[in-house]
Amino acid sequence: MSVRVAIAGASGYTGFELVRLLCAHPSALISGITSRQQKGHRLDDHYPALKGHCDLVFTDTDPEKLASSADLVFTALPHEAAMDIVPGLLQLGVKVVDLSADYRLRSPEVYGQWYSVHKTPELLDEAVYGLPELHRDRIREARLVANPGCYPTSVILAAAPLLAKGLIDPATIIADSKSGVSGAGRGVSLGVHFCEVNESFKAYKVAEHRHTPEIEQELSAMAGASVVINFTPHLVPMSRGILSTVYASLRKGVSAGEVDGAFRDFYAGEPFVRLSAPGGLPSSLQVRGSNYCDLGWKVDQRTGRVIVVSVIDNLTRGASGQAVCNMNIMCGFAENAGLDFAPWQP
Amino acid sequence: MSVRVAIAGASGYTGFELVRLLCAHPSALISGITSRQQKGHRLDDHYPALKGHCDLVFTDTDPEKLASSADLVFTALPHEAAMDIVPGLLQLGVKVVDLSADYRLRSPEVYGQWYSVHKTPELLDEAVYGLPELHRDRIREARLVANPGCYPTSVILAAAPLLAKGLIDPATIIADSKSGVSGAGRGVSLGVHFCEVNESFKAYKVAEHRHTPEIEQELSAMAGASVVINFTPHLVPMSRGILSTVYASLRKGVSAGEVDGAFRDFYAGEPFVRLSAPGGLPSSLQVRGSNYCDLGWKVDQRTGRVIVVSVIDNLTRGASGQAVCNMNIMCGFAENAGLDFAPWQP
Amino acid sequence: MSVRVAIAGASGYTGFELVRLLCAHPSALISGITSRQQKGHRLDDHYPALKGHCDLVFTDTDPEKLASSADLVFTALPHEAAMDIVPGLLQLGVKVVDLSADYRLRSPEVYGQWYSVHKTPELLDEAVYGLPELHRDRIREARLVANPGCYPTSVILAAAPLLAKGLIDPATIIADSKSGVSGAGRGVSLGVHFCEVNESFKAYKVAEHRHTPEIEQELSAMAGASVVINFTPHLVPMSRGILSTVYASLRKGVSAGEVDGAFRDFYAGEPFVRLSAPGGLPSSLQVRGSNYCDLGWKVDQRTGRVIVVSVIDNLTRGASGQAVCNMNIMCGFAENAGLDFAPWQP
Amino acid sequence: MSVRVAIAGASGYTGFELVRLLCAHPSALISGITSRQQKGHRLDDHYPALKGHCDLVFTDTDPEKLASSADLVFTALPHEAAMDIVPGLLQLGVKVVDLSADYRLRSPEVYGQWYSVHKTPELLDEAVYGLPELHRDRIREARLVANPGCYPTSVILAAAPLLAKGLIDPATIIADSKSGVSGAGRGVSLGVHFCEVNESFKAYKVAEHRHTPEIEQELSAMAGASVVINFTPHLVPMSRGILSTVYASLRKGVSAGEVDGAFRDFYAGEPFVRLSAPGGLPSSLQVRGSNYCDLGWKVDQRTGRVIVVSVIDNLTRGASGQAVCNMNIMCGFAENAGLDFAPWQP
Repeated sequence: MSVRVAIAGASGYTGFELVRLLCAHPSALISGITSRQQKGHRLDDHYPALKGHCDLVFTDTDPEKLASSADLVFTALPHEAAMDIVPGLLQLGVKVVDLSADYRLRSPEVYGQWYSVHKTPELLDEAVYGLPELHRDRIREARLVANPGCYPTSVILAAAPLLAKGLIDPATIIADSKSGVSGAGRGVSLGVHFCEVNESFKAYKVAEHRHTPEIEQELSAMAGASVVINFTPHLVPMSRGILSTVYASLRKGVSAGEVDGAFRDFYAGEPFVRLSAPGGLPSSLQVRGSNYCDLGWKVDQRTGRVIVVSVIDNLTRGASGQAVCNMNIMCGFAENAGLDFAPWQP
Repeated sequence: MSVRVAIAGASGYTGFELVRLLCAHPSALISGITSRQQKGHRLDDHYPALKGHCDLVFTDTDPEKLASSADLVFTALPHEAAMDIVPGLLQLGVKVVDLSADYRLRSPEVYGQWYSVHKTPELLDEAVYGLPELHRDRIREARLVANPGCYPTSVILAAAPLLAKGLIDPATIIADSKSGVSGAGRGVSLGVHFCEVNESFKAYKVAEHRHTPEIEQELSAMAGASVVINFTPHLVPMSRGILSTVYASLRKGVSAGEVDGAFRDFYAGEPFVRLSAPGGLPSSLQVRGSNYCDLGWKVDQRTGRVIVVSVIDNLTRGASGQAVCNMNIMCGFAENAGLDFAPWQP
Repeated sequence: MSVRVAIAGASGYTGFELVRLLCAHPSALISGITSRQQKGHRLDDHYPALKGHCDLVFTDTDPEKLASSADLVFTALPHEAAMDIVPGLLQLGVKVVDLSADYRLRSPEVYGQWYSVHKTPELLDEAVYGLPELHRDRIREARLVANPGCYPTSVILAAAPLLAKGLIDPATIIADSKSGVSGAGRGVSLGVHFCEVNESFKAYKVAEHRHTPEIEQELSAMAGASVVINFTPHLVPMSRGILSTVYASLRKGVSAGEVDGAFRDFYAGEPFVRLSAPGGLPSSLQVRGSNYCDLGWKVDQRTGRVIVVSVIDNLTRGASGQAVCNMNIMCGFAENAGLDFAPWQP
Repeated sequence: MSVRVAIAGASGYTGFELVRLLCAHPSALISGITSRQQKGHRLDDHYPALKGHCDLVFTDTDPEKLASSADLVFTALPHEAAMDIVPGLLQLGVKVVDLSADYRLRSPEVYGQWYSVHKTPELLDEAVYGLPELHRDRIREARLVANPGCYPTSVILAAAPLLAKGLIDPATIIADSKSGVSGAGRGVSLGVHFCEVNESFKAYKVAEHRHTPEIEQELSAMAGASVVINFTPHLVPMSRGILSTVYASLRKGVSAGEVDGAFRDFYAGEPFVRLSAPGGLPSSLQVRGSNYCDLGWKVDQRTGRVIVVSVIDNLTRGASGQAVCNMNIMCGFAENAGLDFAPWQP
């Protein structure tokens, strides 16, 4: 049994990564790819790497056409563009994994504060935030899955076990995140010019990055109370990978052993979370190209804080790999189907 | 039907790449891994990336033990060390794909000039040079396959069609090659220190690199006459990839169309060679992580030369991927079994 | 008027950077360089870049010889080795700028906890912590200046104005720092292998890095009370540069304008601190190769925290540039003598 | 005595490098900078690195205004744009160092074949090709110096001594060149996107790069006969630096000693050419940020070829450094004034 999938907005890095993963998927068949800019061109002219793997031609992003040949559509469009086509796709009976930010926030008000006026607020209740470790059961039944942002994936998975067990003070969470350049997409600008990024490290959008409310929404749900955090993104001179360093003050009397236990319990049996050996800390390289989130942590007795280090590949676990994982869950496939390969080293 | 394989010398980058590929291979099972230095340690402690993929422990490199649980052994040892165990493995009835240089040269004299005295010259006639495009039929029957060097793979595939059709003057071949740093292995030295390599480009072993005789042997066979070339390796500040720029003077009257035809004929139906569209030139990135060799070329009417650009991933097509491909051929599997995934971008 | 200087331990990156700066200094003359490992070799064989700039030969690190030809010695030795020769040099009437950690901590007990037993605790009171913005007057009179660590320079300069004005709660300071690889020195190890660092990002020595007490000592002095912080270093795949992201909770009622004012007042007239325009944030690249510390900051009204971003070149401001600056102050030269060049772009 | 200089087209990497060098020059004063795109903005807003070094504002590129406050103008404009203003500047009595290609070729026909129709062919005879090692005397007297291209500088300096002494067959010259990304300028395009360049190596414009005729013109003059070469540029994932590997067949009977002698004689006393010790080969890193061209070579007895390796910094020796050197010669300053600093390591 196999699922026919289409990718709306397939010309960027996220689109490439979806094609790479779906070409090798045992139960998925790519039936169509769309791109406004590349319409009429072959995907493998755009990405010579794909020669021999996919001979599709980019078409227009027409919901009717997409729905006629696909059971599920991945929408890898910019925010605001996604909500223009997602409702139509759903009405035509197609399942959707949306990689934009449009259906991640439950509150249209919050969406309005950080993005713009939401055009289809009626769908927000139905949409499921596609982080399998938190919402696996609802994803299974969903028509519309909002694929999490790259930074939020790394930060939420780092903090969730501690909040779930009530080990930290939610008011003290600081997430200092570092991302490779592919997170900025394939569009051209001075900010992604090789010579401006190479041999440089910088912070950006400090205290105002749009991934903040998404993190806060999920951490609040986990804490059972409103959580407000500091989230600081930085740009690393490398192509792929995110590392988030998450700080929080432990509640009085919490021991290092309890922290260890929280992580081991929370992620027991999870196929895509790997915990470092005691004292160990993961590098972004050790998950490159894979759907893993690797976690390590340390309790600092001097300051009473716990420091969690979380690594993912921003294009795989942070976007397309997680999207395929969500498809697997929605379609009843093995959760790791097409995703069970080793990370790329070196 | 499945083959049990062992890897002798599995702790370096070539060993990791073998494990990565074999873990995902539909018909291979890794039965053992050896390493003098890492003996007793788990592979996934050494490479946290492999956690969940391989829980083997490094053992000593003992031919008897290897042969008792494996049908085929990959020897990823330094030259001279390989020829210490290969004869024993063959005698015990095990097939061998040797990734060292020990069985690549047909002539013990030439081996002696560039390496050292050969200890088992009697095996040189039997060993097959494992470049499938040139020696597929002999590989199929071989007990011992000498897996080609990384640079030679890129250079031979670039020049072979032109020599086979007699389009170039063999005395004019110059191969200017550029390699990522993983080609130097995982051993530590000032030469691979990040700060010495980063933001630097350099040539090394000019006119004296040991891959020279290997290239000349295969090109001579193709030309039907002794070919002597210039081969110049360079170090590129990147982890993986080789690009070789190969120059040769065209014989009088040879047209650009004949050059095109030579490549298209020679590589017709080949699963792991991809030819650029006319005017196109491949980048090393477009084959990263894959077993492809992508080729592009240009005829310069002003100088009467042809310039061929050849790209491979040095660890995959230049070592472990090609070794798995050779295993596939030796074992009667599909030639692309376990190797049919898209390259890594970006 | 010119000063004769010698460099003890000149073969590493810090030593090279000292030579580069001192060769171009209008009032300094390098009279000797030492290195145990490179003894007898020319510096410009070791560093071909220096050909034509310095023809000195490495000698043994003998205090008597050093003192006989130098007025001031830079000791760029590992900690513990520095305190073996510094007392002798002082006794011989030579001024010392020590780039090791041996004289940075005022308390021999704290040194003992983080390093080892101090051999010359009697010198700790006299030694001046060589951060000109904090201790310019004492540096002017000093015989022995303890040149600050790279991370501490970036963190202390970020937090000092806020503590000096009492704008933040000292118990809430978290310094998340990111450094290029040259900070690890020129010694070889798997950890600095190009392929292990490239395309990777990682944290290390979380909650246990030895620069922690040095930062705490200076911030405590500034706060007038004991300050304990979290300091987390990370490794960035680039050769040079440190960026520190420093978080702290503002005291109740502190406005963004007061924060701005604190920085502008504290650094008024400083030649080597540059403040970003409002809303701006510095990148590590914009100070590369220079002695600048560039600072930017943001007040987050949602969380009540201030986030300060501080960038330096770890080899220049974080080591050798600051050492030359200290020499300038100790010798009565213009503070920016030999340091008044623009950063390297790109 | 000091010279007032202006820079037309100062917003790119070449412009920045000119500002960096001229700010530190003992006898030059920057009186104006122009940029169509950045008109009205401060240079140090555009390049925060320059804060404290240059507070100039970009103006329009108006020859009259430039001439009114400058004795010499550096024109760092695209080709075709340069020849729109150079004649006017000369008429107004200003000396010009032109960094474009417009005045490098002696023949308007050749310019027409590779670029476009030349608008001021009458100036071509007067313009001096600004490679000091070849044309120092004419540069001294010139009103208009055509600053050489980056690749040509590296290739011509590699081959000139061998042609001057008649040691090689001019018909066999092949220049395989590799450049950092800053050579492509600061304009944005997919080709300089970090993720497209990083971890990638590629050739481009094979057999059709516009630097070819410039190299051939100078080598022909050196050989006393028409020289046609193969020149192949490649893109290296680093910001700065060019390494050219130049191949040629030695004339019969030429010894390695004669080759050594040719280089030593030709470059005796040159301030900006450094020759490697016998057997040594330079890296691009060892000249980074400096005006040096470092050369190494090897005679391959097996093939009868000589291989010369030449390294420069493309922005310094390949553009702005050489331009300042030409200014020094034109103004009677010491040739290395403002250029006598050590290269940047690491």
